[in-house]
Amino acid sequence: MTLEVSALKGMYPAFPTPFTADGAIDTERLHALVDTLIADGATGLVPVGGTGEYTALSPAERTLVVRATVEAARGRVPVVAGVVSPGYAEALDAGQAFVDAGAAALLLVTPFYVTPSDAGVRAYFQRYRDAAGVPLLLYDIPARTRYATPPATIASMAKEDGTIIGMKACNTDLNAFARTVALAGKDMAILSGDDLLYVHHVLLGAVGGILTSASLLPKAWARIHASAANGDAATALREHAMLAPMLDAIFSETNPGPAKKAFELLGDGLGPVRLPLVEPAAATVARMKEALAGLPKGWLP
Amino acid sequence: MTLEVSALKGMYPAFPTPFTADGAIDTERLHALVDTLIADGATGLVPVGGTGEYTALSPAERTLVVRATVEAARGRVPVVAGVVSPGYAEALDAGQAFVDAGAAALLLVTPFYVTPSDAGVRAYFQRYRDAAGVPLLLYDIPARTRYATPPATIASMAKEDGTIIGMKACNTDLNAFARTVALAGKDMAILSGDDLLYVHHVLLGAVGGILTSASLLPKAWARIHASAANGDAATALREHAMLAPMLDAIFSETNPGPAKKAFELLGDGLGPVRLPLVEPAAATVARMKEALAGLPKGWLP
Amino acid sequence: MTLEVSALKGMYPAFPTPFTADGAIDTERLHALVDTLIADGATGLVPVGGTGEYTALSPAERTLVVRATVEAARGRVPVVAGVVSPGYAEALDAGQAFVDAGAAALLLVTPFYVTPSDAGVRAYFQRYRDAAGVPLLLYDIPARTRYATPPATIASMAKEDGTIIGMKACNTDLNAFARTVALAGKDMAILSGDDLLYVHHVLLGAVGGILTSASLLPKAWARIHASAANGDAATALREHAMLAPMLDAIFSETNPGPAKKAFELLGDGLGPVRLPLVEPAAATVARMKEALAGLPKGWLP
Amino acid sequence: MTLEVSALKGMYPAFPTPFTADGAIDTERLHALVDTLIADGATGLVPVGGTGEYTALSPAERTLVVRATVEAARGRVPVVAGVVSPGYAEALDAGQAFVDAGAAALLLVTPFYVTPSDAGVRAYFQRYRDAAGVPLLLYDIPARTRYATPPATIASMAKEDGTIIGMKACNTDLNAFARTVALAGKDMAILSGDDLLYVHHVLLGAVGGILTSASLLPKAWARIHASAANGDAATALREHAMLAPMLDAIFSETNPGPAKKAFELLGDGLGPVRLPLVEPAAATVARMKEALAGLPKGWLP
Repeated sequence: MTLEVSALKGMYPAFPTPFTADGAIDTERLHALVDTLIADGATGLVPVGGTGEYTALSPAERTLVVRATVEAARGRVPVVAGVVSPGYAEALDAGQAFVDAGAAALLLVTPFYVTPSDAGVRAYFQRYRDAAGVPLLLYDIPARTRYATPPATIASMAKEDGTIIGMKACNTDLNAFARTVALAGKDMAILSGDDLLYVHHVLLGAVGGILTSASLLPKAWARIHASAANGDAATALREHAMLAPMLDAIFSETNPGPAKKAFELLGDGLGPVRLPLVEPAAATVARMKEALAGLPKGWLP
Repeated sequence: MTLEVSALKGMYPAFPTPFTADGAIDTERLHALVDTLIADGATGLVPVGGTGEYTALSPAERTLVVRATVEAARGRVPVVAGVVSPGYAEALDAGQAFVDAGAAALLLVTPFYVTPSDAGVRAYFQRYRDAAGVPLLLYDIPARTRYATPPATIASMAKEDGTIIGMKACNTDLNAFARTVALAGKDMAILSGDDLLYVHHVLLGAVGGILTSASLLPKAWARIHASAANGDAATALREHAMLAPMLDAIFSETNPGPAKKAFELLGDGLGPVRLPLVEPAAATVARMKEALAGLPKGWLP
Repeated sequence: MTLEVSALKGMYPAFPTPFTADGAIDTERLHALVDTLIADGATGLVPVGGTGEYTALSPAERTLVVRATVEAARGRVPVVAGVVSPGYAEALDAGQAFVDAGAAALLLVTPFYVTPSDAGVRAYFQRYRDAAGVPLLLYDIPARTRYATPPATIASMAKEDGTIIGMKACNTDLNAFARTVALAGKDMAILSGDDLLYVHHVLLGAVGGILTSASLLPKAWARIHASAANGDAATALREHAMLAPMLDAIFSETNPGPAKKAFELLGDGLGPVRLPLVEPAAATVARMKEALAGLPKGWLP
Repeated sequence: MTLEVSALKGMYPAFPTPFTADGAIDTERLHALVDTLIADGATGLVPVGGTGEYTALSPAERTLVVRATVEAARGRVPVVAGVVSPGYAEALDAGQAFVDAGAAALLLVTPFYVTPSDAGVRAYFQRYRDAAGVPLLLYDIPARTRYATPPATIASMAKEDGTIIGMKACNTDLNAFARTVALAGKDMAILSGDDLLYVHHVLLGAVGGILTSASLLPKAWARIHASAANGDAATALREHAMLAPMLDAIFSETNPGPAKKAFELLGDGLGPVRLPLVEPAAATVARMKEALAGLPKGWLP
């Protein structure tokens, strides 16, 4: 399955990796989750990114998750696999395994631990694209990597040689986001990766999102996305504001700790998290319960 | 070869991984480097940490570097291998391979990308220690991981169950360093990992260091360490001040870009760096040349 | 002149203090500027805030500027004077002088230099309000004060005892902004203080703005505000995007250095800046020229 | 009284401003405090800086405090008055009043709120020195002002035209401190302003300190300073480590909240703090009590 840039729009939930009670990948639960997400409007799927606890999985487990996602999707929507290795060699090995497992494109994070230069990031992505031979999305998430890809560098990758066909934007600087849209919005698909800024991102030019909470509350996000994509800012922001207390709770601890727990609160858990993540604090769980109780019934599973 | 905590003192250079012109591991150059370092006073060796471009190497290459270091050391000094994977599964695989290759201990970084809680770090290290079965050193480097291990958590790992026998301290907060010494300095070996703060760390209780520039200028660092370890603060700081312009230049770009180039300036290069690192700027190279020219001849190779 | 909360809406330009060539307050130029701003749609005026170089003026000069602004306004629009002293005594003296000079309300910054607690800020504003006896607006600008007033503290000031009737919001955290609107948007007038985030602030609930660049390009901002206030997000964002290159240039150095220079570029300068501000760099001036050249003619004076 | 640079050494306590129960300046208590400090080894005195709640005092109160300090000192030690106004006009007015009241030199903070350029700071201090006509010390405290004066700028002020004769160094970057000493340590008196880094600063070249806790525990600091100034690093650091728990407690909330409370714990209070400061938390008070109980009796008043 190949991926056209035109298919990169709408909601691509980034979902936690389901584990069985003894900590193995729970492919059965994963299949059910994928069916639910597609039924509730997902236009694509993003397994094994940060939300999928990429760094805590072994390479074999990551590939297993991608393959299970592809199988569960049955071609109904494309699978864009997250590659969150800090350096080139492991990132390329992972990406090639994901493509072999059926991923239609790769979402590659900027190199981290080693703080890169802009020129280094540019060359890193170009070499990766040449080696991987599949469409690439840039994953820009400064809060985790301590590096923000400048709009001009992003535009260069999108326009000069087709290194990337899209990106997941997590930089919370809206001004940088707007500049990226101005420079390259017509040359690639910009997807928001920030649950809190989503409506603003869409109003500024994002064509969709890769959101953690869209895997938990897909019906709510289908509405919010539709309102925002239709340009109905007032409705989109009002709907988003209804979701805000839940989002604040989910992101009050390191993701996906609370989000994974929230699946359990909604009646169909995804199992435990792996170290260094731990169970969310009791106060966080209480906040999520209260926030969920305040949502419209139609937004819940 | 097993490692006693009493052997964790003096200078353990953290050295760049030598590459051939075509980018492969240059084990011949590595052997020569190891001989030089031991001749110039190294009491231990730290291959494949951040300075060794860990994240840019494949797992097989990392193990090759550790094995070559062990072989080159020929039992003269212990080899403590750096483990800089962001999460548990890959970190454990790497560590076990390094032990099989002859590493006497592992230097394990706190999990990164996923920002951990203190409890999560505590449990992560305990589980790793149980699984790896070799002595463990904590690698605490907030500038890269965005997480600073609290002194009380470090002390708990050193004292309660022997999870760690030492640490490489890179937190630039001297007050936190002093608290760590006060809480656990008698229970583990604290090694400084900051070339700029080294003398202060030793005066406060560090028993040695794991330093990048000690692989480049081992004679200079042998003197500085001796002065500081003897409690001669004035001499140690004067000698360190002489090195300061070179250190400022080396760390003005992401390590080990400039450091690796400096080997070339000193006449015996280690080859190129890998992406996302790039060649240091011309101005940085000029600064290093000028700084090297100002050093006493006896400090140079 | 008293100020009703209902009058706090629309555009309140924050304008630089005009100086003569020898550095004195240029009241003549100030009168002309005020006439222009009102003619171009200003619904209020904010003299002597950060943009007015408050900290560089003497207390007598600040009062002179406020009085001149009130006189120039001739009751056509209210004058809200900025009070940017770091502590209570001088802040109160300034505020009382401004009220005597005709200010309808005071815009009081959170105390700075001494980093406050939330309880300290709450008590500080309450005591000030009681002593000053005029309507108060909170000035929340964490980038300058290193302190962000929590939404709950803001809401408490607006709702419990009427300590504030409005605020100038400069916290770039949109999520905090949205929470403030949710908690207290009906109880006070929230004005945006961020030229870059303005449209987003209005879409979320701001009823107007206190903007530096609105004193330079009032016609442009009248359009943008109208579009945003009418809920036409697409048009407002498109218009704002046209202004973005100029805004980026203006805020690339410490405000109001470039902004003040831009008045000169537009043909009617406001004189020099005072230390520690210096003339903007040549590159910044060139950027502003280019940006101004790209604007629609109808947006310029 | 004029101040020679050679007199700028040893301990210059920065002391809180004593207030009566109703919040007025308590000059009687101030006189007693000054006598105690001089008896316990102070070589100079620093009234009305940050520790003296400068920003919370009126201009008249500040001058009253400086005059009372000068009178109490009776020429036994010089008085260096802190000037912590954010901008030029008020800073100069304050400084001139302090000189009239008998201050031998002024300790001038870098301009704040308006983030300055290096060139702006250089010109600001030069103009101030020319206007004030008394010896000037630079007050560099980035944690409060968000601006760190570069070593080269400091050196320029000390060497080129005698703008400054000394400085209070609060930048926690030890490397920047060492560079400043290397560039200008022979041309001015560098005093440490960081209670936690004091010994390191002296070992690197500071000739004394301007410390808050030296006003609370002058006997302890007399010992620590003597050890450090004699080059006995081991003793100085051991003594400092004994004080560390108290210092950690004192600076766990915004200074001088806890420090002022500590005077009360030691039996002779200095009265309340002013807004925005509030009484320290009960837990902080308990920490201070416990820390004080652990100190040698000879270190207490």
